[in-house]
Amino acid sequence: MVSKNQIKLITSLQQKKYRKQEQLFFAEGVKVVQELLNSNFELVYLFTTKEDFSDVSKDKIYAITDAELKKISALSTPNSCLALFRIPEAKPFVEKGLIVALDDVRDPGNLGTIIRLCDWFGIETLYCSEESVDIYNPKVVQATMGSISRVNIVYGNLETLLSKTKLPVFGTFMDGKNIYQEKLPKEGIIVMGNEANGISVAVEKLVSERIAIPRFGNLQLTESLNVATATAIILSEFKRG
Amino acid sequence: MVSKNQIKLITSLQQKKYRKQEQLFFAEGVKVVQELLNSNFELVYLFTTKEDFSDVSKDKIYAITDAELKKISALSTPNSCLALFRIPEAKPFVEKGLIVALDDVRDPGNLGTIIRLCDWFGIETLYCSEESVDIYNPKVVQATMGSISRVNIVYGNLETLLSKTKLPVFGTFMDGKNIYQEKLPKEGIIVMGNEANGISVAVEKLVSERIAIPRFGNLQLTESLNVATATAIILSEFKRG
Repeated sequence: MVSKNQIKLITSLQQKKYRKQEQLFFAEGVKVVQELLNSNFELVYLFTTKEDFSDVSKDKIYAITDAELKKISALSTPNSCLALFRIPEAKPFVEKGLIVALDDVRDPGNLGTIIRLCDWFGIETLYCSEESVDIYNPKVVQATMGSISRVNIVYGNLETLLSKTKLPVFGTFMDGKNIYQEKLPKEGIIVMGNEANGISVAVEKLVSERIAIPRFGNLQLTESLNVATATAIILSEFKRG
Repeated sequence: MVSKNQIKLITSLQQKKYRKQEQLFFAEGVKVVQELLNSNFELVYLFTTKEDFSDVSKDKIYAITDAELKKISALSTPNSCLALFRIPEAKPFVEKGLIVALDDVRDPGNLGTIIRLCDWFGIETLYCSEESVDIYNPKVVQATMGSISRVNIVYGNLETLLSKTKLPVFGTFMDGKNIYQEKLPKEGIIVMGNEANGISVAVEKLVSERIAIPRFGNLQLTESLNVATATAIILSEFKRG
Protein backbone atom coordinates (compact mmCIF):
# COMPACT_ATOMS: atom_id res chain seq x y z
CA MET A 1 0.00 0.00 0.00
CA VAL A 2 0.95 3.61 -0.43
CA SER A 3 0.84 6.13 2.42
CA LYS A 4 -0.64 9.61 2.29
CA ASN A 5 2.82 11.09 2.63
CA GLN A 6 4.09 9.01 -0.26
CA ILE A 7 1.17 10.16 -2.45
CA LYS A 8 1.91 13.75 -1.51
CA LEU A 9 5.63 13.36 -2.20
CA ILE A 10 5.21 11.61 -5.55
CA THR A 11 2.56 13.96 -6.93
CA SER A 12 4.72 16.93 -5.86
CA LEU A 13 7.52 15.53 -8.03
CA GLN A 14 5.56 16.41 -11.14
CA GLN A 15 6.89 19.90 -10.42
CA LYS A 16 10.52 20.81 -11.03
CA LYS A 17 10.72 22.84 -7.81
CA TYR A 18 10.02 19.77 -5.66
CA ARG A 19 12.22 17.48 -7.75
CA LYS A 20 15.06 19.91 -7.10
CA GLN A 21 14.26 20.21 -3.40
CA GLU A 22 13.93 16.44 -2.84
CA GLN A 23 16.50 15.39 -5.47
CA LEU A 24 14.07 12.69 -6.54
CA PHE A 25 12.17 11.79 -9.72
CA PHE A 26 9.87 8.98 -10.77
CA ALA A 27 9.41 6.74 -13.80
CA GLU A 28 6.48 4.55 -14.83
CA GLY A 29 5.91 1.35 -16.75
CA VAL A 30 7.82 -1.93 -16.66
CA LYS A 31 10.05 -1.14 -19.62
CA VAL A 32 11.29 2.27 -18.47
CA VAL A 33 11.55 1.25 -14.79
CA GLN A 34 13.47 -1.91 -15.68
CA GLU A 35 15.93 0.07 -17.82
CA LEU A 36 16.57 2.48 -14.95
CA LEU A 37 16.93 -0.39 -12.46
CA ASN A 38 19.55 -1.91 -14.76
CA SER A 39 21.53 1.33 -14.80
CA ASN A 40 23.22 3.38 -12.11
CA PHE A 41 20.13 5.15 -10.78
CA GLU A 42 19.51 4.62 -7.08
CA LEU A 43 16.05 3.23 -6.39
CA VAL A 44 14.16 4.67 -3.41
CA TYR A 45 10.79 2.87 -3.65
CA LEU A 46 9.08 0.72 -6.24
CA PHE A 47 5.27 0.53 -6.32
CA THR A 48 3.78 -2.26 -8.38
CA THR A 49 0.41 -3.87 -9.03
CA LYS A 50 1.73 -7.16 -10.39
CA GLU A 51 5.33 -7.61 -11.53
CA ASP A 52 7.58 -9.25 -9.02
CA PHE A 53 10.94 -7.59 -9.87
CA SER A 54 12.97 -10.46 -8.43
CA ASP A 55 16.24 -8.50 -8.44
CA VAL A 56 14.94 -5.62 -6.30
CA SER A 57 15.39 -5.87 -2.54
CA LYS A 58 12.03 -6.61 -0.91
CA ASP A 59 12.09 -3.70 1.55
CA LYS A 60 11.91 -1.28 -1.38
CA ILE A 61 8.88 -2.87 -3.06
CA TYR A 62 5.32 -1.88 -2.22
CA ALA A 63 2.49 -3.99 -3.63
CA ILE A 64 -0.34 -1.62 -4.46
CA THR A 65 -3.76 -1.73 -6.10
CA ASP A 66 -4.75 -0.18 -9.42
CA ALA A 67 -6.70 2.47 -7.52
CA GLU A 68 -3.59 3.39 -5.49
CA LEU A 69 -1.43 3.50 -8.61
CA LYS A 70 -3.90 5.91 -10.17
CA LYS A 71 -3.39 8.27 -7.22
CA ILE A 72 0.37 8.56 -7.75
CA SER A 73 0.61 8.17 -11.53
CA ALA A 74 1.16 11.06 -13.94
CA LEU A 75 -0.24 9.00 -16.82
CA SER A 76 -3.87 9.01 -17.91
CA THR A 77 -3.60 5.22 -18.23
CA PRO A 78 -1.27 4.03 -15.45
CA ASN A 79 1.02 1.21 -16.36
CA SER A 80 1.34 -1.36 -13.49
CA CYS A 81 4.38 0.16 -11.76
CA LEU A 82 5.99 3.41 -10.66
CA ALA A 83 9.46 3.80 -9.22
CA LEU A 84 11.07 6.61 -7.32
CA PHE A 85 14.76 7.26 -8.01
CA ARG A 86 17.35 9.62 -6.63
CA ILE A 87 18.55 12.29 -9.09
CA PRO A 88 22.25 11.55 -9.61
CA GLU A 89 24.90 14.23 -9.55
CA ALA A 90 25.51 15.57 -13.04
CA LYS A 91 28.68 14.18 -14.54
CA PRO A 92 31.27 16.74 -15.57
CA PHE A 93 30.86 18.14 -19.06
CA VAL A 94 33.43 16.72 -21.45
CA GLU A 95 34.05 18.79 -24.55
CA LYS A 96 34.82 15.98 -26.93
CA GLY A 97 33.30 14.24 -29.94
CA LEU A 98 29.86 15.20 -31.20
CA ILE A 99 27.72 17.09 -28.72
CA VAL A 100 24.07 18.05 -29.16
CA ALA A 101 23.14 21.36 -27.50
CA LEU A 102 19.57 22.55 -27.02
CA ASP A 103 18.68 26.24 -27.07
CA ASP A 104 15.50 26.25 -24.95
CA VAL A 105 13.69 23.13 -26.16
CA ARG A 106 10.48 23.26 -24.13
CA ASP A 107 8.36 20.28 -25.15
CA PRO A 108 8.95 17.20 -22.95
CA GLY A 109 8.13 14.81 -25.81
CA ASN A 110 10.72 16.50 -28.03
CA LEU A 111 13.42 16.35 -25.35
CA GLY A 112 12.62 12.68 -24.67
CA THR A 113 12.83 11.86 -28.38
CA ILE A 114 16.12 13.75 -28.73
CA ILE A 115 17.63 11.83 -25.79
CA ARG A 116 16.56 8.58 -27.49
CA LEU A 117 18.19 9.76 -30.74
CA CYS A 118 21.44 10.66 -28.93
CA ASP A 119 21.47 7.16 -27.49
CA TRP A 120 20.83 5.57 -30.93
CA PHE A 121 23.53 7.61 -32.65
CA GLY A 122 26.10 7.21 -29.88
CA ILE A 123 26.12 10.88 -28.84
CA GLU A 124 27.51 10.78 -25.32
CA THR A 125 26.73 14.32 -24.20
CA LEU A 126 23.59 16.41 -24.48
CA TYR A 127 23.97 20.01 -23.32
CA CYS A 128 20.74 21.82 -22.38
CA SER A 129 20.37 25.57 -21.91
CA GLU A 130 19.00 26.47 -18.51
CA GLU A 131 15.58 27.31 -19.95
CA SER A 132 15.19 23.90 -21.60
CA VAL A 133 12.62 21.53 -20.11
CA ASP A 134 13.94 19.45 -17.18
CA ILE A 135 15.00 15.90 -18.09
CA TYR A 136 13.41 14.58 -14.89
CA ASN A 137 9.99 15.89 -15.92
CA PRO A 138 7.82 12.70 -15.90
CA LYS A 139 6.84 13.18 -19.56
CA VAL A 140 10.49 13.41 -20.59
CA VAL A 141 11.40 10.33 -18.57
CA GLN A 142 8.58 8.36 -20.24
CA ALA A 143 9.47 9.53 -23.76
CA THR A 144 13.13 8.48 -23.41
CA MET A 145 12.13 4.81 -23.01
CA GLY A 146 15.13 4.30 -20.74
CA SER A 147 17.71 6.09 -22.88
CA ILE A 148 18.02 8.69 -20.12
CA SER A 149 20.35 6.30 -18.32
CA ARG A 150 22.79 6.14 -21.23
CA VAL A 151 23.30 9.77 -22.26
CA ASN A 152 25.18 12.28 -20.13
CA ILE A 153 22.92 15.33 -19.85
CA VAL A 154 24.30 18.63 -18.60
CA TYR A 155 22.43 21.91 -17.98
CA GLY A 156 24.22 25.22 -18.16
CA ASN A 157 24.62 28.56 -19.86
CA LEU A 158 24.71 27.79 -23.58
CA GLU A 159 26.11 31.17 -24.59
CA THR A 160 29.01 30.80 -22.17
CA LEU A 161 29.75 27.31 -23.50
CA LEU A 162 29.65 28.38 -27.14
CA SER A 163 31.71 31.52 -26.62
CA LYS A 164 34.53 29.49 -25.07
CA THR A 165 34.52 26.31 -27.14
CA LYS A 166 37.21 25.43 -29.65
CA LEU A 167 34.87 23.01 -31.43
CA PRO A 168 32.96 24.07 -34.56
CA VAL A 169 29.39 25.10 -33.71
CA PHE A 170 26.67 23.95 -36.13
CA GLY A 171 23.24 25.52 -36.36
CA THR A 172 20.37 24.98 -38.81
CA PHE A 173 19.09 27.99 -40.75
CA MET A 174 17.08 28.43 -43.94
CA ASP A 175 20.09 30.07 -45.62
CA GLY A 176 22.61 27.50 -44.38
CA LYS A 177 24.71 25.21 -46.56
CA ASN A 178 23.02 22.05 -47.84
CA ILE A 179 23.86 19.45 -45.19
CA TYR A 180 23.83 16.67 -47.82
CA GLN A 181 26.80 18.29 -49.58
CA GLU A 182 28.93 19.22 -46.57
CA LYS A 183 31.83 17.23 -45.24
CA LEU A 184 30.84 16.91 -41.61
CA PRO A 185 33.49 16.47 -38.90
CA LYS A 186 33.63 13.89 -36.12
CA GLU A 187 33.77 16.59 -33.47
CA GLY A 188 31.50 19.56 -33.00
CA ILE A 189 28.55 21.05 -31.19
CA ILE A 190 25.18 20.78 -32.97
CA VAL A 191 22.76 23.43 -31.69
CA MET A 192 19.02 22.76 -32.02
CA GLY A 193 16.60 25.63 -31.40
CA ASN A 194 13.38 26.31 -29.55
CA GLU A 195 10.10 24.94 -31.03
CA ALA A 196 8.55 28.33 -31.73
CA ASN A 197 11.53 30.64 -32.25
CA GLY A 198 14.36 28.45 -33.48
CA ILE A 199 17.88 29.40 -32.45
CA SER A 200 17.97 32.65 -30.47
CA VAL A 201 19.73 35.73 -31.83
CA ALA A 202 22.42 35.63 -29.12
CA VAL A 203 23.20 31.96 -29.82
CA GLU A 204 23.06 32.45 -33.60
CA LYS A 205 26.03 34.85 -33.32
CA LEU A 206 28.09 32.03 -31.84
CA VAL A 207 27.29 29.53 -34.61
CA SER A 208 30.32 29.04 -36.86
CA GLU A 209 28.78 26.62 -39.40
CA ARG A 210 25.35 27.42 -40.81
CA ILE A 211 23.71 24.34 -42.28
CA ALA A 212 20.29 23.56 -43.80
CA ILE A 213 18.18 20.49 -44.43
CA PRO A 214 16.89 20.96 -47.99
CA ARG A 215 13.16 20.89 -48.58
CA PHE A 216 11.71 18.88 -51.43
CA GLY A 217 8.04 19.77 -51.05
CA ASN A 218 6.22 22.97 -51.93
CA LEU A 219 8.82 25.62 -51.14
CA GLN A 220 6.37 28.34 -50.31
CA LEU A 221 4.03 26.52 -48.01
CA THR A 222 5.78 23.74 -46.16
CA GLU A 223 6.10 24.29 -42.42
CA SER A 224 9.52 23.89 -40.86
CA LEU A 225 10.43 20.49 -39.49
CA ASN A 226 9.75 19.62 -35.87
CA VAL A 227 12.95 19.94 -33.77
CA ALA A 228 13.07 16.20 -32.95
CA THR A 229 12.74 15.10 -36.60
CA ALA A 230 15.31 17.72 -37.65
CA THR A 231 17.68 16.32 -35.00
CA ALA A 232 17.11 12.81 -36.40
CA ILE A 233 18.07 13.88 -39.92
CA ILE A 234 21.11 15.91 -38.80
CA LEU A 235 22.52 13.17 -36.55
CA SER A 236 22.00 10.65 -39.34
CA GLU A 237 24.02 12.88 -41.69
CA PHE A 238 26.86 13.37 -39.20
CA LYS A 239 27.09 9.66 -38.49
CA ARG A 240 26.47 8.01 -41.88
CA GLY A 241 29.98 8.93 -43.01
CA MET B 1 -21.77 32.98 -29.60
CA VAL B 2 -21.94 29.22 -29.91
CA SER B 3 -25.24 27.31 -29.64
CA LYS B 4 -25.84 24.16 -27.59
CA ASN B 5 -26.25 22.18 -30.77
CA GLN B 6 -22.95 23.46 -32.10
CA ILE B 7 -21.20 22.50 -28.85
CA LYS B 8 -22.74 19.05 -29.05
CA LEU B 9 -21.77 18.64 -32.71
CA ILE B 10 -18.18 19.84 -32.29
CA THR B 11 -17.42 17.79 -29.19
CA SER B 12 -18.90 14.71 -30.90
CA LEU B 13 -16.35 15.21 -33.70
CA GLN B 14 -13.59 14.17 -31.35
CA GLN B 15 -14.86 10.66 -32.12
CA LYS B 16 -14.21 9.02 -35.48
CA LYS B 17 -17.74 7.58 -35.62
CA TYR B 18 -19.31 11.05 -35.64
CA ARG B 19 -16.71 12.51 -38.00
CA LYS B 20 -17.64 9.75 -40.44
CA GLN B 21 -21.36 10.27 -39.93
CA GLU B 22 -21.23 14.05 -40.30
CA GLN B 23 -18.30 14.15 -42.76
CA LEU B 24 -16.89 17.03 -40.74
CA PHE B 25 -13.72 17.68 -38.74
CA PHE B 26 -12.29 20.64 -36.86
CA ALA B 27 -8.94 22.39 -36.52
CA GLU B 28 -7.70 24.84 -33.90
CA GLY B 29 -5.25 27.71 -33.71
CA VAL B 30 -4.62 30.56 -36.14
CA LYS B 31 -1.74 28.88 -37.93
CA VAL B 32 -3.43 25.56 -38.69
CA VAL B 33 -6.83 27.14 -39.43
CA GLN B 34 -5.26 29.69 -41.77
CA GLU B 35 -3.39 26.97 -43.67
CA LEU B 36 -6.61 25.00 -44.15
CA LEU B 37 -8.50 28.14 -45.21
CA ASN B 38 -5.81 28.75 -47.84
CA SER B 39 -6.25 25.24 -49.22
CA ASN B 40 -9.19 23.41 -50.78
CA PHE B 41 -10.99 22.49 -47.57
CA GLU B 42 -14.56 23.76 -47.38
CA LEU B 43 -15.19 25.85 -44.28
CA VAL B 44 -18.47 25.30 -42.44
CA TYR B 45 -18.10 27.61 -39.41
CA LEU B 46 -15.26 29.56 -37.86
CA PHE B 47 -15.35 30.41 -34.15
CA THR B 48 -12.91 33.02 -32.95
CA THR B 49 -12.18 35.08 -29.86
CA LYS B 50 -10.19 37.80 -31.60
CA GLU B 51 -8.77 37.38 -35.11
CA ASP B 52 -10.78 39.04 -37.82
CA PHE B 53 -10.07 36.66 -40.76
CA SER B 54 -10.84 39.31 -43.36
CA ASP B 55 -10.97 36.83 -46.24
CA VAL B 56 -13.68 34.64 -44.67
CA SER B 57 -17.32 35.41 -45.48
CA LYS B 58 -18.97 37.03 -42.46
CA ASP B 59 -21.91 34.62 -42.23
CA LYS B 60 -19.48 31.81 -41.42
CA ILE B 61 -17.72 33.60 -38.56
CA TYR B 62 -18.95 33.44 -34.96
CA ALA B 63 -17.33 35.75 -32.42
CA ILE B 64 -17.11 33.82 -29.17
CA THR B 65 -15.69 34.28 -25.67
CA ASP B 66 -12.77 32.38 -24.16
CA ALA B 67 -15.24 30.49 -21.97
CA GLU B 68 -17.22 29.39 -25.04
CA LEU B 69 -14.05 28.35 -26.86
CA LYS B 70 -13.11 26.20 -23.91
CA LYS B 71 -16.41 24.31 -24.26
CA ILE B 72 -15.73 23.28 -27.87
CA SER B 73 -11.93 22.96 -27.83
CA ALA B 74 -10.08 19.65 -27.68
CA LEU B 75 -6.96 21.40 -26.37
CA SER B 76 -6.10 21.86 -22.72
CA THR B 77 -5.06 25.42 -23.58
CA PRO B 78 -7.42 26.64 -26.32
CA ASN B 79 -5.90 28.80 -28.95
CA SER B 80 -8.20 31.72 -29.96
CA CYS B 81 -10.01 30.00 -32.86
CA LEU B 82 -11.60 26.75 -33.99
CA ALA B 83 -12.88 26.00 -37.46
CA LEU B 84 -15.18 23.30 -38.73
CA PHE B 85 -14.42 21.90 -42.18
CA ARG B 86 -16.06 19.38 -44.45
CA ILE B 87 -14.06 16.16 -44.97
CA PRO B 88 -13.20 16.12 -48.68
CA GLU B 89 -13.61 13.05 -50.84
CA ALA B 90 -10.40 11.04 -50.89
CA LYS B 91 -8.48 11.54 -54.11
CA PRO B 92 -7.79 8.39 -56.12
CA PHE B 93 -4.64 6.52 -55.17
CA VAL B 94 -1.89 7.03 -57.73
CA GLU B 95 0.82 4.37 -57.69
CA LYS B 96 3.72 6.56 -58.72
CA GLY B 97 6.89 8.03 -57.25
CA LEU B 98 7.75 7.48 -53.61
CA ILE B 99 4.84 6.47 -51.39
CA VAL B 100 4.88 6.13 -47.62
CA ALA B 101 2.58 3.37 -46.30
CA LEU B 102 1.68 2.96 -42.63
CA ASP B 103 1.01 -0.46 -41.14
CA ASP B 104 -1.27 0.46 -38.20
CA VAL B 105 0.41 3.60 -36.84
CA ARG B 106 -1.81 4.40 -33.85
CA ASP B 107 -0.38 7.50 -32.19
CA PRO B 108 -1.94 10.76 -33.48
CA GLY B 109 1.27 12.73 -32.82
CA ASN B 110 3.28 10.24 -34.88
CA LEU B 111 0.83 10.35 -37.80
CA GLY B 112 0.80 14.16 -37.69
CA THR B 113 4.60 14.29 -37.69
CA ILE B 114 4.79 11.80 -40.58
CA ILE B 115 2.34 13.90 -42.66
CA ARG B 116 4.56 16.94 -42.00
CA LEU B 117 7.62 14.95 -43.10
CA CYS B 118 5.87 13.79 -46.31
CA ASP B 119 5.09 17.44 -47.06
CA TRP B 120 8.71 18.48 -46.40
CA PHE B 121 10.20 15.74 -48.56
CA GLY B 122 7.69 16.13 -51.39
CA ILE B 123 6.01 12.75 -50.86
CA GLU B 124 2.64 13.20 -52.57
CA THR B 125 0.86 10.11 -51.30
CA LEU B 126 0.57 8.60 -47.84
CA TYR B 127 -1.22 5.25 -47.70
CA CYS B 128 -2.65 4.23 -44.32
CA SER B 129 -3.83 0.76 -43.37
CA GLU B 130 -7.43 0.72 -42.17
CA GLU B 131 -6.35 0.27 -38.55
CA SER B 132 -4.12 3.36 -38.59
CA VAL B 133 -5.32 6.37 -36.61
CA ASP B 134 -7.73 8.65 -38.50
CA ILE B 135 -6.12 11.75 -40.07
CA TYR B 136 -9.10 13.86 -39.03
CA ASN B 137 -8.54 13.04 -35.34
CA PRO B 138 -8.08 16.53 -33.75
CA LYS B 139 -4.64 15.59 -32.38
CA VAL B 140 -3.45 14.55 -35.84
CA VAL B 141 -4.82 17.72 -37.42
CA GLN B 142 -2.96 19.83 -34.83
CA ALA B 143 0.31 17.94 -35.20
CA THR B 144 0.37 18.35 -39.00
CA MET B 145 0.57 22.15 -38.68
CA GLY B 146 -1.38 22.49 -41.93
CA SER B 147 0.55 19.92 -43.97
CA ILE B 148 -2.62 17.83 -44.07
CA SER B 149 -3.80 20.04 -46.92
CA ARG B 150 -0.77 19.24 -49.08
CA VAL B 151 -0.40 15.46 -48.88
CA ASN B 152 -2.87 13.04 -50.49
CA ILE B 153 -3.80 10.56 -47.79
CA VAL B 154 -5.58 7.33 -48.69
CA TYR B 155 -6.89 4.60 -46.36
CA GLY B 156 -7.23 1.03 -47.54
CA ASN B 157 -6.14 -2.56 -47.21
CA LEU B 158 -2.34 -2.48 -47.11
CA GLU B 159 -1.89 -6.19 -47.83
CA THR B 160 -4.03 -5.93 -50.95
CA LEU B 161 -2.04 -2.92 -52.14
CA LEU B 162 1.33 -4.55 -51.54
CA SER B 163 0.36 -7.89 -53.08
CA LYS B 164 -0.62 -6.17 -56.34
CA THR B 165 2.00 -3.43 -56.68
CA LYS B 166 4.78 -3.50 -59.22
CA LEU B 167 6.83 -1.02 -57.18
CA PRO B 168 9.60 -2.23 -54.85
CA VAL B 169 8.37 -2.44 -51.25
CA PHE B 170 10.80 -1.24 -48.55
CA GLY B 171 10.54 -2.20 -44.89
CA THR B 172 12.88 -1.55 -41.96
CA PHE B 173 14.15 -4.57 -40.02
CA MET B 174 17.08 -5.20 -37.69
CA ASP B 175 18.60 -7.63 -40.22
CA GLY B 176 18.00 -5.36 -43.24
CA LYS B 177 20.69 -3.89 -45.48
CA ASN B 178 22.43 -0.74 -44.24
CA ILE B 179 20.35 2.08 -45.73
CA TYR B 180 23.44 4.31 -45.94
CA GLN B 181 25.04 1.90 -48.42
CA GLU B 182 22.05 1.13 -50.62
CA LYS B 183 21.27 2.77 -53.93
CA LEU B 184 17.71 3.87 -53.34
CA PRO B 185 15.28 4.28 -56.26
CA LYS B 186 13.03 7.23 -57.08
CA GLU B 187 9.94 5.06 -57.00
CA GLY B 188 8.81 2.65 -54.32
CA ILE B 189 6.57 2.06 -51.33
CA ILE B 190 8.18 2.63 -47.92
CA VAL B 191 6.30 0.72 -45.21
CA MET B 192 6.52 1.98 -41.60
CA GLY B 193 5.26 -0.25 -38.81
CA ASN B 194 3.13 0.00 -35.71
CA GLU B 195 4.64 1.66 -32.60
CA ALA B 196 4.62 -1.46 -30.44
CA ASN B 197 4.86 -4.31 -32.91
CA GLY B 198 6.64 -2.92 -35.95
CA ILE B 199 5.67 -4.31 -39.34
CA SER B 200 3.12 -7.13 -39.06
CA VAL B 201 4.00 -10.67 -40.14
CA ALA B 202 1.51 -10.60 -43.04
CA VAL B 203 2.93 -7.31 -44.37
CA GLU B 204 6.54 -8.40 -43.81
CA LYS B 205 6.00 -11.22 -46.34
CA LEU B 206 5.17 -8.60 -48.97
CA VAL B 207 8.32 -6.51 -48.36
CA SER B 208 10.79 -6.96 -51.23
CA GLU B 209 13.64 -4.78 -49.88
CA ARG B 210 14.67 -5.18 -46.25
CA ILE B 211 16.59 -2.13 -45.04
CA ALA B 212 18.02 -1.03 -41.68
CA ILE B 213 19.07 2.24 -40.06
CA PRO B 214 22.41 1.42 -38.40
CA ARG B 215 22.78 2.07 -34.69
CA PHE B 216 25.85 3.78 -33.34
CA GLY B 217 25.10 3.64 -29.64
CA ASN B 218 25.29 0.74 -27.21
CA LEU B 219 24.14 -2.15 -29.38
CA GLN B 220 22.72 -4.21 -26.58
CA LEU B 221 20.69 -1.63 -24.82
CA THR B 222 19.45 1.04 -27.17
CA GLU B 223 15.70 1.08 -27.73
CA SER B 224 14.43 1.12 -31.29
CA LEU B 225 13.78 4.49 -32.89
CA ASN B 226 10.34 6.07 -32.70
CA VAL B 227 8.41 5.53 -35.96
CA ALA B 228 8.31 9.26 -36.79
CA THR B 229 12.06 9.78 -36.32
CA ALA B 230 12.77 6.60 -38.31
CA THR B 231 10.57 7.96 -41.11
CA ALA B 232 12.55 11.23 -41.01
CA ILE B 233 15.86 9.42 -41.48
CA ILE B 234 14.57 7.09 -44.21
CA LEU B 235 12.95 9.87 -46.26
CA SER B 236 16.11 11.94 -45.92
CA GLU B 237 18.13 9.01 -47.31
CA PHE B 238 15.76 8.43 -50.25
CA LYS B 239 15.76 12.11 -51.18
CA ARG B 240 19.33 13.22 -50.53
CA GLY B 241 20.49 11.46 -53.74
